[in-house]
Amino acid sequence: MRQQPQSIADFREQARRRLPRFVFDFIDGGSGSENTLAENRSALDRHRLVGRAPVDVQACSQSVTLFGRDYSMPVIIGPTGLAGAAWPRGDVDLARAASKAGIPFVMSTAATATMEEVAAAEAGAKWFQLYIFKDRAVSARLIAKAKALGFKALEVTVDNAIPGRRLRDARNGFSLPFRWTPAKLASLAAHPAWSMRMARAGAPRLEVMAAELGLDEADTIAELMQSQLDPSVGWEDIKWVRDAWDGPLIVKGMLDPGQVAKAVETGVDGLVISNHGGRQLDGAVATIDILAEFRAQAGSRLTLLVDSGFRTGSDIARALALGADAVQVGRATLFALAGGGEAGVRRALDILKSELEIAQMLMGARAIQDFGPAMLRSPRPLRAP
Amino acid sequence: MRQQPQSIADFREQARRRLPRFVFDFIDGGSGSENTLAENRSALDRHRLVGRAPVDVQACSQSVTLFGRDYSMPVIIGPTGLAGAAWPRGDVDLARAASKAGIPFVMSTAATATMEEVAAAEAGAKWFQLYIFKDRAVSARLIAKAKALGFKALEVTVDNAIPGRRLRDARNGFSLPFRWTPAKLASLAAHPAWSMRMARAGAPRLEVMAAELGLDEADTIAELMQSQLDPSVGWEDIKWVRDAWDGPLIVKGMLDPGQVAKAVETGVDGLVISNHGGRQLDGAVATIDILAEFRAQAGSRLTLLVDSGFRTGSDIARALALGADAVQVGRATLFALAGGGEAGVRRALDILKSELEIAQMLMGARAIQDFGPAMLRSPRPLRAP
Amino acid sequence: MRQQPQSIADFREQARRRLPRFVFDFIDGGSGSENTLAENRSALDRHRLVGRAPVDVQACSQSVTLFGRDYSMPVIIGPTGLAGAAWPRGDVDLARAASKAGIPFVMSTAATATMEEVAAAEAGAKWFQLYIFKDRAVSARLIAKAKALGFKALEVTVDNAIPGRRLRDARNGFSLPFRWTPAKLASLAAHPAWSMRMARAGAPRLEVMAAELGLDEADTIAELMQSQLDPSVGWEDIKWVRDAWDGPLIVKGMLDPGQVAKAVETGVDGLVISNHGGRQLDGAVATIDILAEFRAQAGSRLTLLVDSGFRTGSDIARALALGADAVQVGRATLFALAGGGEAGVRRALDILKSELEIAQMLMGARAIQDFGPAMLRSPRPLRAP
Amino acid sequence: MRQQPQSIADFREQARRRLPRFVFDFIDGGSGSENTLAENRSALDRHRLVGRAPVDVQACSQSVTLFGRDYSMPVIIGPTGLAGAAWPRGDVDLARAASKAGIPFVMSTAATATMEEVAAAEAGAKWFQLYIFKDRAVSARLIAKAKALGFKALEVTVDNAIPGRRLRDARNGFSLPFRWTPAKLASLAAHPAWSMRMARAGAPRLEVMAAELGLDEADTIAELMQSQLDPSVGWEDIKWVRDAWDGPLIVKGMLDPGQVAKAVETGVDGLVISNHGGRQLDGAVATIDILAEFRAQAGSRLTLLVDSGFRTGSDIARALALGADAVQVGRATLFALAGGGEAGVRRALDILKSELEIAQMLMGARAIQDFGPAMLRSPRPLRAP
Repeated sequence: MRQQPQSIADFREQARRRLPRFVFDFIDGGSGSENTLAENRSALDRHRLVGRAPVDVQACSQSVTLFGRDYSMPVIIGPTGLAGAAWPRGDVDLARAASKAGIPFVMSTAATATMEEVAAAEAGAKWFQLYIFKDRAVSARLIAKAKALGFKALEVTVDNAIPGRRLRDARNGFSLPFRWTPAKLASLAAHPAWSMRMARAGAPRLEVMAAELGLDEADTIAELMQSQLDPSVGWEDIKWVRDAWDGPLIVKGMLDPGQVAKAVETGVDGLVISNHGGRQLDGAVATIDILAEFRAQAGSRLTLLVDSGFRTGSDIARALALGADAVQVGRATLFALAGGGEAGVRRALDILKSELEIAQMLMGARAIQDFGPAMLRSPRPLRAP
Repeated sequence: MRQQPQSIADFREQARRRLPRFVFDFIDGGSGSENTLAENRSALDRHRLVGRAPVDVQACSQSVTLFGRDYSMPVIIGPTGLAGAAWPRGDVDLARAASKAGIPFVMSTAATATMEEVAAAEAGAKWFQLYIFKDRAVSARLIAKAKALGFKALEVTVDNAIPGRRLRDARNGFSLPFRWTPAKLASLAAHPAWSMRMARAGAPRLEVMAAELGLDEADTIAELMQSQLDPSVGWEDIKWVRDAWDGPLIVKGMLDPGQVAKAVETGVDGLVISNHGGRQLDGAVATIDILAEFRAQAGSRLTLLVDSGFRTGSDIARALALGADAVQVGRATLFALAGGGEAGVRRALDILKSELEIAQMLMGARAIQDFGPAMLRSPRPLRAP
Repeated sequence: MRQQPQSIADFREQARRRLPRFVFDFIDGGSGSENTLAENRSALDRHRLVGRAPVDVQACSQSVTLFGRDYSMPVIIGPTGLAGAAWPRGDVDLARAASKAGIPFVMSTAATATMEEVAAAEAGAKWFQLYIFKDRAVSARLIAKAKALGFKALEVTVDNAIPGRRLRDARNGFSLPFRWTPAKLASLAAHPAWSMRMARAGAPRLEVMAAELGLDEADTIAELMQSQLDPSVGWEDIKWVRDAWDGPLIVKGMLDPGQVAKAVETGVDGLVISNHGGRQLDGAVATIDILAEFRAQAGSRLTLLVDSGFRTGSDIARALALGADAVQVGRATLFALAGGGEAGVRRALDILKSELEIAQMLMGARAIQDFGPAMLRSPRPLRAP
Repeated sequence: MRQQPQSIADFREQARRRLPRFVFDFIDGGSGSENTLAENRSALDRHRLVGRAPVDVQACSQSVTLFGRDYSMPVIIGPTGLAGAAWPRGDVDLARAASKAGIPFVMSTAATATMEEVAAAEAGAKWFQLYIFKDRAVSARLIAKAKALGFKALEVTVDNAIPGRRLRDARNGFSLPFRWTPAKLASLAAHPAWSMRMARAGAPRLEVMAAELGLDEADTIAELMQSQLDPSVGWEDIKWVRDAWDGPLIVKGMLDPGQVAKAVETGVDGLVISNHGGRQLDGAVATIDILAEFRAQAGSRLTLLVDSGFRTGSDIARALALGADAVQVGRATLFALAGGGEAGVRRALDILKSELEIAQMLMGARAIQDFGPAMLRSPRPLRAP
């Protein structure tokens, strides 16, 4: 199938063909036995949607308000490191596509473009994803810079106390900067378009971190992260960020509903319920299976975002019905980026929006707020044994 | 296996061989990830039948009364658009086969024969499936014509507020009228019998809609539908149809048991519980998993029909045991139509009747009304989370 | 693997190699979509065994008492029609093997040996399986003959009100007597040992029925059965058999626990809970999933036998733990019969006994009566919806 | 993939390539239909882990105290017979690797090295696994010798009342001493490195048993065991061991929570909940599915170890969360042993420790005791029907 992608699954197949194996695997892979990766899909499929008709859905709208700002749909391009491996300065393309689609783009601290470049590209609602580094001064400078450049919200990633074991990367010898093994060079020859783009643009660099940290070579991005990230991060550190940042503050990487009270106490505005796309804790619960517990704990006190494995409009509808305010995508737009830069990403967002609109209209939900649990039929929830 | 089909599954395999890919895919495919399509089968298989013997089942009968008329079995040939792509003027063959089998045939508004042709072919109980068009006058004229031509019941489809994304059609470049790409022409050469039939009969046309709407070219049947169907349709529109039609009124495309009260209030006589054969809402609940909730809500106030994935007599028995009054088939008879026109359809109906008779006799259900939930063993029902 | 079979699964593979396709399929196949066949295996696997140690199991015994007689293990060679297609006069080999193993053999009315031959071969506990024919006089004569020849118990099959649709047989053109199509003749050439045995012994005939009914040609064994069996059979007919037979009376083919009271009232001694090995009701519940309901209804008033898909000692242990008194096997010993006549069957029985002994010893059940539900861990039971 | 193994799954693949088939199958195989083997994996996967962040996990430790001694992690190299088939004198390599990793090694009575050799190799916490032989004097001598050589704990295996039927061994003609069939000789040629090692070191012998029992040839290790092990072993025999051994006493091979009270009464210190890695009772419950019942019965009165199918750090985390004090591995380290002797085993232990550390840090469990059921989301537990 060499045709126009019709779904995120098609974009994934396209990316598999167009990217060298070690790059595709870096994006596509999960940690350990990739058991969480598989569960993310299976768990979504277990929750079945209830169509509702006849309902007047002519004036149907996907727009949502998140942290006081309106967006065209409850979809956020979430932070993904090393986007430049998929497409030169891919972060900028992601930002532009999000801006044009009227949705937030969350720039990663592991971006391959500078904060200035992204800030310039995204006229709308750019958010910044922050790591809490061992050297807190680095994080402090990034917060200040985000504020100065007009980033609207801060997403602090907390599920990186230690990197997951990404075995595909270890097997492929994926390193930063790229180290050119014979296998990788052979892979370049088989992917001339990608290679030419990279040759012209130069190999991707973690621009933000390079500027702040003066990076050395590292075997894998995981090792790099491990050397810089601080496993001591607790709620007091979130409090520290809270004091330093007066915009919306989102904590990314939550799986335990027992932490909701702490989040509220700490003055956090929102959470991203996440298993890091199956790239961290091998065997983690799927986010769709824990979301309702979060909403039950949080009530209306927190904005709840969710990610990890959402690939279709129906997946987004499942999350909304279970209490999410919006869904973050990561690989979905990276696969599209790999296929055609900004244009690819825009097409992927169009597809998601169209699929969501279809789900919404067929489920009789005129507005995003109309989604609720009565629109699902699900097996008994997993629970603590 | 080039033998006489012994089951609907055999007819499907036969159709896969005999039809050009783009036609087979149009019939066989579902929307989005085709996840609903797969679930329709899995969900049926989870409900296990309880045989009951020894019970005197000599005078066993499959006959049912629906809306005051007797039929030979609780099976209805449901409305399917573009039947003529499977067999020239296929709607007429379906009507004739239904008539001879003593069961209702529901003519689709997207039929490829005229209402007059079908009315002439079906001596027995022809029903008419109605879309509510943006231009209500078209729908009004169709109602009047159905009445004039002696159609016995009206089935108003409501789960088409927007068409599902049928990716096989998009990939195959399925369009109306057929546009002859090299791939499609090659496909013709590989299916000479089908091609010759089409050459003689002319490409199929949506005769009813063409007459009423003066159709333009459209990329896909989905786009065509989207341009004509009205997403504002609500229960007031059903009321409008109710006032215009004094025969039995059936609303097709229900998945939400919460709407039963509205249906009763509106004076509707029956429902078709349906996920449109997995062609609309991707991720929809299987109808067998929601049927019992409908029966619990409706009591005896509504006739409940069900469709989406029923392929065997045992499937029909499952639906009857869970409270359905009858089952509509769509692809089952289309596959058979593709294999041999009216004769194929008659054979398919014979197989279904024979399979149902076997299930019935082995389950000790002398009459269709004897089916009940005690004849099933099922996992805990899915429920709203 | 051309080695000595180590399990019933090995015997099945051996039979697949040694038998012509149309014969193997006749034995191995199920009805309709063969969905019950698959479920029989899956359902057994869902019930997990609890090992119990350390328990003194030195004096462990498999012996059971059924209807007042002792047997070496709770396994019965159940009735299977047309055993002679697997091995000439195979019924006699089955009888001899059962006799030597000290377990009952149930001769089928559709046997390919005469009642006299089987009676002579089985010194021990031969039982007779009875059909209730349209012509009750035939059944009456068979009862009288069974009594005269010393058969110890009568098993009346009741789940044959109509034969299931065995599609493999229909596709293979399986008929009685064998009709030699080119495909079947080719199949003979590929299986010279089987062909030579059949050439010497003559094609198998339904000796009992031929003698009593003067059989005509029939397209399939199913059609033959349908022409002779009486769909009006109810509990009054069982009462009629009860009055005619003063030995243990067993009703075979029960799936509905709601009929237990009737069975007790009618004076029946035992039941065979059965879905006919997946050969009758397509979609039927697995017997392991309905057995506990039967035991709950029956208490100690009935001997409960179970069949349909039991292939290992652990499967037998599951049935015993859920309340069965013994397990009937059918295909297990037929596959072995096909592999080597009586010697094959004896080996299969040895394997089953050895596997049961292992399960028993590892589960700490010194005697068969020690098995109980506390030795299982199972998912929630299926139930009437 | 000829690279450095990154997971236990990789070590298994490496072992499959490096070992002759009959040796790999001896290690990898299970009993009967290998249904327990498959269930061990599936059951673990059904229990989903809940990540917990942000939690300060800087001072995270894997250390545990078992029977009054500290170990570096809650992992034990469990007893496995015939380790020398994987690597000459492999027991010594396992002991050394365990010693260096700071974890217990449990020497098997079916070891291929002498107790003196292992005692010398393991400076740390060596434990001894004991069979209760028909000849109790042999067991008594082994207890005395274990005490004299400084073994710290005794693990008495009780789930061997009879050996499971390991069909791969039967098919491969696996015997002790090795009998050289043509297939096995051919297999040697294909595995020159293994063959050369064995040629140099001599074929493995069950050194402990040979010294004590003066072994004859046996067809399989199972037959050998059956001839020596005593099926009469009950709690009184455990009492006898208890009286003879004053160190920690562990009973290995428990699956029935109903026996916990007996264990406590008998003065046992710990249990190994085990289905013998799927090598004994075919169809046994997975240990992860029965563990919580054991903890509920035992409270803090017993140390609970668990084995059977644990392959990743996340698997270990699952067991800890459900109440295990530590996990025993068997095949995990045998596969690694086959790949590179002591160095392989050390790498496997490093991987397990690293994976456990990751799980622990991402689950916010600073210490092993912090694991608890709130960190899991599981389906409803299996239960006695």
